[in-house]
Amino acid sequence: MTKVTAQLSVSADGFYAGPQFAGDGDWMDSAESAGFFRVTRWVTEAMSWRERQGFAGGEQDTNSAVVAESFEAAGAYVMGRRMADGGEVPWGADPPFRAPVFVVTHRPRQTLLREGGTSFTYVTDGVASAVEQARAVAGGKNVAVAGGGSLVRQVLKAGLLDELELHVVPVVLGTGLRLFDADLDLGDKEAIELTPTRVIHTPQVTHIRYAVDGRAPLVLDDRGSGGGPTVTTN
Amino acid sequence: MTKVTAQLSVSADGFYAGPQFAGDGDWMDSAESAGFFRVTRWVTEAMSWRERQGFAGGEQDTNSAVVAESFEAAGAYVMGRRMADGGEVPWGADPPFRAPVFVVTHRPRQTLLREGGTSFTYVTDGVASAVEQARAVAGGKNVAVAGGGSLVRQVLKAGLLDELELHVVPVVLGTGLRLFDADLDLGDKEAIELTPTRVIHTPQVTHIRYAVDGRAPLVLDDRGSGGGPTVTTN
Repeated sequence: MTKVTAQLSVSADGFYAGPQFAGDGDWMDSAESAGFFRVTRWVTEAMSWRERQGFAGGEQDTNSAVVAESFEAAGAYVMGRRMADGGEVPWGADPPFRAPVFVVTHRPRQTLLREGGTSFTYVTDGVASAVEQARAVAGGKNVAVAGGGSLVRQVLKAGLLDELELHVVPVVLGTGLRLFDADLDLGDKEAIELTPTRVIHTPQVTHIRYAVDGRAPLVLDDRGSGGGPTVTTN
Repeated sequence: MTKVTAQLSVSADGFYAGPQFAGDGDWMDSAESAGFFRVTRWVTEAMSWRERQGFAGGEQDTNSAVVAESFEAAGAYVMGRRMADGGEVPWGADPPFRAPVFVVTHRPRQTLLREGGTSFTYVTDGVASAVEQARAVAGGKNVAVAGGGSLVRQVLKAGLLDELELHVVPVVLGTGLRLFDADLDLGDKEAIELTPTRVIHTPQVTHIRYAVDGRAPLVLDDRGSGGGPTVTTN
């Protein structure tokens, strides 16, 4: 059955890139890029990712298997406009997705067909429509929300996300683009509950996969204090 | 050898409590408290924590062992003023620390002696002084930064933290008090590197322990792209 999934590499303090690049100069020299490449280093070192990019070498290890599994599980992608624009040139004629990609954008544009099974279809009527269009062609595989973080947040906020995998990288960036930065429209004393379904740990990164259970009230759970107030040592 | 350690329960999106309580009404009814009790639920359910509080029952499981180990490892504590104030009444005559606690505050106050080995010494000359005073009496055990989050951040920022354990709870709070919210005085393209030293996973919480390696430059690490720009699929 098709699930809607997202996975993102984040620092221990929740950033997936450095502070957003303002647009002057080269993105590759920016602080945004420096943070981004730090948290995705485990990806760029993975042989399975390098093969998709046409690069030689890389590590054939647990992390590489996680990347390979992620590519394999995706039957179609949903992607933010900024990521799609940024990738268009470097991904070249044979982008790594090898599946239909639906780009959420405000600007209509003709579908872009690439080699290897990748296509970019520009969806102007919102996130839910992009997810539905991706689901229709995913062939029973997953719809993978490729990023960036703001799109992942939108899909989560809309209640469309079934699974979230965080690749938690052992670094504190201190500032930058956060996966969870903006209002998710959660009410007072409301949260989105998750269930961890898989944890894989390597020295480079801790992979935590969650099923998204959905919104739930935060019930005061002051267990067994006999009615008096308690403060934990945390 | 004495290490300076900190451990904090956080949501998957990095909050250790709900939005800060403004001060009208009962903290126990606040959104801050609702978030706090959600991320510390695994603690309040742990038998080892309940025993220290004088509560019956609880789970005798892996999470309880993590709490017990944490209490056992601490020879002295450093604590923020807000946490110490909030705990003073509910902790009562026999607080759960059973070790000297050094409270970082601007307000001088006489040392408070409690039963069971707990004392509260009020330190007005800064975080580094509190850590040093705690180290002097820790008897070779660890100096544990008990919280809250802003004190943990200060100790990290000052380069005094040796070990950080995050107890990552499977919930998205969306808003609240973040462990990593404020400027850590990191330079442009600078980060604090960590090394994961232990990961323990349970259905309720994923415990990730890091050694703090310290500040390091973020070097652009665009492996093997042959010089051209790359964008990962993350």
